[in-house]
Amino acid sequence: MAAALTPQGEDFPRWYQDVVAKAEMADNGPARGTMVIRPYGYAIWERMVSELDERIKATGAENAYFPLFIPLSYLSREAEHVEGFSPELAVVTHGGGEELAEPLVVRPTSETVIGEFMAKWIQSHRDLPLRLNQWANVVRWEMRPRLFLRSSEFLWQEGHTAHATREDALNYLMTIHLNVYNDFLVNVLAAPTYLGMKSPRERFAGALNTYTAEGMMKDGKALQMVTSHDLGQNFARAFEITYQSEDGASEVCHTTSWGASTRLVGGLIMTHGDDEGLVVPPRAAPTQVVVIPVRDDDAVLAACERLLEELRREGVRARLDRGRGSFGRRVTDWEIKGVPLRIEVGPRDLAEGVVTLVRRDTGEKSARSIQGLGAAASDLLEVIQGDLLGAATRRRDEATIDVTGIEGAIEAAQGGFARLPWSLVGEDGEDRLNAEAVSVRCLTRPDGSIPESVHEEGLLAIVARSY
Amino acid sequence: MAAALTPQGEDFPRWYQDVVAKAEMADNGPARGTMVIRPYGYAIWERMVSELDERIKATGAENAYFPLFIPLSYLSREAEHVEGFSPELAVVTHGGGEELAEPLVVRPTSETVIGEFMAKWIQSHRDLPLRLNQWANVVRWEMRPRLFLRSSEFLWQEGHTAHATREDALNYLMTIHLNVYNDFLVNVLAAPTYLGMKSPRERFAGALNTYTAEGMMKDGKALQMVTSHDLGQNFARAFEITYQSEDGASEVCHTTSWGASTRLVGGLIMTHGDDEGLVVPPRAAPTQVVVIPVRDDDAVLAACERLLEELRREGVRARLDRGRGSFGRRVTDWEIKGVPLRIEVGPRDLAEGVVTLVRRDTGEKSARSIQGLGAAASDLLEVIQGDLLGAATRRRDEATIDVTGIEGAIEAAQGGFARLPWSLVGEDGEDRLNAEAVSVRCLTRPDGSIPESVHEEGLLAIVARSY
Repeated sequence: MAAALTPQGEDFPRWYQDVVAKAEMADNGPARGTMVIRPYGYAIWERMVSELDERIKATGAENAYFPLFIPLSYLSREAEHVEGFSPELAVVTHGGGEELAEPLVVRPTSETVIGEFMAKWIQSHRDLPLRLNQWANVVRWEMRPRLFLRSSEFLWQEGHTAHATREDALNYLMTIHLNVYNDFLVNVLAAPTYLGMKSPRERFAGALNTYTAEGMMKDGKALQMVTSHDLGQNFARAFEITYQSEDGASEVCHTTSWGASTRLVGGLIMTHGDDEGLVVPPRAAPTQVVVIPVRDDDAVLAACERLLEELRREGVRARLDRGRGSFGRRVTDWEIKGVPLRIEVGPRDLAEGVVTLVRRDTGEKSARSIQGLGAAASDLLEVIQGDLLGAATRRRDEATIDVTGIEGAIEAAQGGFARLPWSLVGEDGEDRLNAEAVSVRCLTRPDGSIPESVHEEGLLAIVARSY
Repeated sequence: MAAALTPQGEDFPRWYQDVVAKAEMADNGPARGTMVIRPYGYAIWERMVSELDERIKATGAENAYFPLFIPLSYLSREAEHVEGFSPELAVVTHGGGEELAEPLVVRPTSETVIGEFMAKWIQSHRDLPLRLNQWANVVRWEMRPRLFLRSSEFLWQEGHTAHATREDALNYLMTIHLNVYNDFLVNVLAAPTYLGMKSPRERFAGALNTYTAEGMMKDGKALQMVTSHDLGQNFARAFEITYQSEDGASEVCHTTSWGASTRLVGGLIMTHGDDEGLVVPPRAAPTQVVVIPVRDDDAVLAACERLLEELRREGVRARLDRGRGSFGRRVTDWEIKGVPLRIEVGPRDLAEGVVTLVRRDTGEKSARSIQGLGAAASDLLEVIQGDLLGAATRRRDEATIDVTGIEGAIEAAQGGFARLPWSLVGEDGEDRLNAEAVSVRCLTRPDGSIPESVHEEGLLAIVARSY
């Protein structure tokens, strides 16, 4: 039952566009580069928000909300910062029917305004650590927009923290990067990652170091899933975020920032999707199981309702589709939407006390007893979750090639990732890669852990084309 | 233990400002009229969002997200609509480093862009009803800003639905207004409301009717807590939201819209707050119980930790304050923040197997056995919730005066609400009220239910000064 999608092998970007449209994930907004996130796409984002928010709060961070509009003068405080953003800014020049004395920038990030308030709220060492997180929309003008991946407005969370010591800042940042972000990516999105540090030229402007988690999409390109920045004392100095230590001295704070955005929805699509459409891992799925009656007779519908009840009692996010259209049409629709498990309920099966379970990821069908189906479905969802991670990890490992030089890396990057000693790259090597639209995605230790510095001996560079 | 707040009786607006600052709810943002919602204020908003979102989803509405920027031309489609907003607009004229060919408006509401997409998504009667909700920030330029109550940017939800028949639209709108909004206001915020319809001049521009829920603040002024609009076919006609009926004819949809915003946080503060600070009803409280050790010794702290565990097992949102500052200072801080129940744990009490419970609403102290304290606290929170609603309802009823004419209404509105037959008001009466900064808050039936039309016989007008 093939969906009317362009096959991935034929034209991957077109396939992506088709999936986003046909799975009713998003539409282009009326203003250039903006997007309308449709209910199904938004429900997936809400699942992501819920899983991330819970993990972020568990680290001790608190949510807050800072204004959308930032006076233009704020962005010139930290010159290096502005340099990075200015072509991306949307500027409000009129408000209340008049031209404004000072233009307002629509936040591209809240870094500056949060810095300002941190400086105000932090007085003493007792106010530290201060750990803030914000869920909000931000705007960065985008000339080549692409739904979820690059849009002029996107939704994200941005965390900003201030600490008394560099050690505390780095420990916390690692907690965010590993226990919040990577745990979420691997265990909810079933997306294996390469963890590492950005090379100096790929680093966030103003950061001492940027940690990243790079995912491999099905076309072999990299997607930077999240980033976490070690800002050292740079920002704190620019915004005068200082505290009085126990012995009364005035000290400069150590700050961090970290973010994840609706880009993750694009990452989810391209990590698991196939020629039939989206494939959503169970833990990320707003609907984990769809129950479809093969025929609209009363006994079948009653059995479906009972099943739905039982699934929900087991904590499964299930829904019944007794909607319009043929059985075949409904099956295709849910396949395109990537619902992990479909239960088909027909009168003949019912007579034998069974129903048919169909896995979205493998297409495998099996007859199962109605008895205890809730628990069986719940178990099967966990199996699917694990299998998706396994399959994605195998794909990634197979498409990651160890090479011994820049030219080999460029070649390998045409279909996947290349890995080579960072010492073999250097500035010139990075120039050469960039000229071929290939970049250093991250620097990692041979055991896959995150280095303490880009200057560590023996680091490997993961190199790829990227989104 | 009086907090350092201006007493309500001395200067209510000043009291409000003091509470917002001292309870660490919000700060003024750097750009005029914007606000920074601090973690404690935001946590209260998150409780509101969670309670409202659950109720909204239960009606069958789905969340979606529409763009922040709306082309200026969209707002001229429905002339009456623009008339209502244009002095309130923030306009983006520059993006990507260039002047834009068409300026973009920062959404004051998403009515127009959602209308556009509804027209696209709705083809057949099978696509109806279409029920969308959005949680987002919106901007309406504010010349006299006041934190939470009137800010240039605020957070809200806006619901927009399209229906095949007027009957279905009105039934759904009533479900939203009563089962979502009023249930939330009364049962979560413990805020009694007057339900009714807006008078023609107070109605949302373009609506056939606007339903409101009006709360009485402690200074006797009204706050419009939420509004729900019956848009008839006006919007659908302007945006060509049509569908093909079962017999193949093209029909115009019937639409509704409804919203609730961060203004509710201001309403919460002014409904229950007192001279000691905020008073948060338990169901709206991010922290329902704070456990405070009277002394920092190990046995006391261990007992506190055990209590905290037990409270959480009972589903109580509890926290332990073993923080800095004296016991008295901590008590005052939590009083200002309005945490409904405080548990004080001291060594002498512990020896007797008891702890002290202190209600924020009444100040009442009682010794309770540690045995089964989780369940006892949970029960007491429900009692507090009910008592707060009871007290607010009594205050409101006592401050609502039945009058027989406009002059009497103006007089009564100096300290509360006036109620009089709508037939005694008329256009001239409304002019006279408005001249004295008094307005018709809603038209209601004598039994308190919402009329079907402002032309119904025997309606009463609720008249007050308002925020």
